Amino acid sequence: METLKLIGHIRSTLHELKDCPLQENEGAPGASIMIDSEYIDAVSGLKAGAKILILTWLHKGDRSILKTKPRNNPKASLTGVFATRSPDRPNPIGLHVAEILSINNNVISVSNLEVLDGTPVIDIKPVI
Amino acid sequence: METLKLIGHIRSTLHELKDCPLQENEGAPGASIMIDSEYIDAVSGLKAGAKILILTWLHKGDRSILKTKPRNNPKASLTGVFATRSPDRPNPIGLHVAEILSINNNVISVSNLEVLDGTPVIDIKPVI
Repeated sequence: METLKLIGHIRSTLHELKDCPLQENEGAPGASIMIDSEYIDAVSGLKAGAKILILTWLHKGDRSILKTKPRNNPKASLTGVFATRSPDRPNPIGLHVAEILSINNNVISVSNLEVLDGTPVIDIKPVI
Repeated sequence: METLKLIGHIRSTLHELKDCPLQENEGAPGASIMIDSEYIDAVSGLKAGAKILILTWLHKGDRSILKTKPRNNPKASLTGVFATRSPDRPNPIGLHVAEILSINNNVISVSNLEVLDGTPVIDIKPVI
């Protein structure tokens, strides 16, 4: 199928999965989206204070996994990955809501974001 | 970058862009997600009545477009595509919320979905 374009990547103080809170907003730190220079024109119109959806490519996900267990409940039965938010799935796309704090050139600073440092960003959309 | 896997496609009565309502839920018809046989195991755990996020690949989108105008306001000024929901964007990923009506083998029937017939599906996630 189609090949994704890398539009940028995340800069964060989260460097390992064990640093990550289990659910969004359980105290995740702020982070920055470093937009690739090629895609800066696509950022115009985004403003501080706006809520955005950030689509990432969870590059540490295992794309061969179809069934999984919750990270915090290893005794649970196996569930299809489409019924979970596991990063292990055929297309490990992460979906995150954050508020824009500021935009400076190619750097979009956002509030609480549970995404590992270096994670590729593949799309940004406004929250409607 | 990475290549996407096609996990299924949409069957809908919407065959052309002009058939589509401008915003989700403006009377979009029901539709079916036809899951590719290779990925059926990943569906287990999904149930009728659950709300899901459906990620699609908007294959008619123009991936070279970085600035655009709203479809219903051609006099508006050009805006970066990351500040819009336009299907024209570097990675034309569509994001849709729908309720599961029923699941039969590889067919997931869902409520109101503004997606053209034949659109590739790339991921399904539960709404939290």
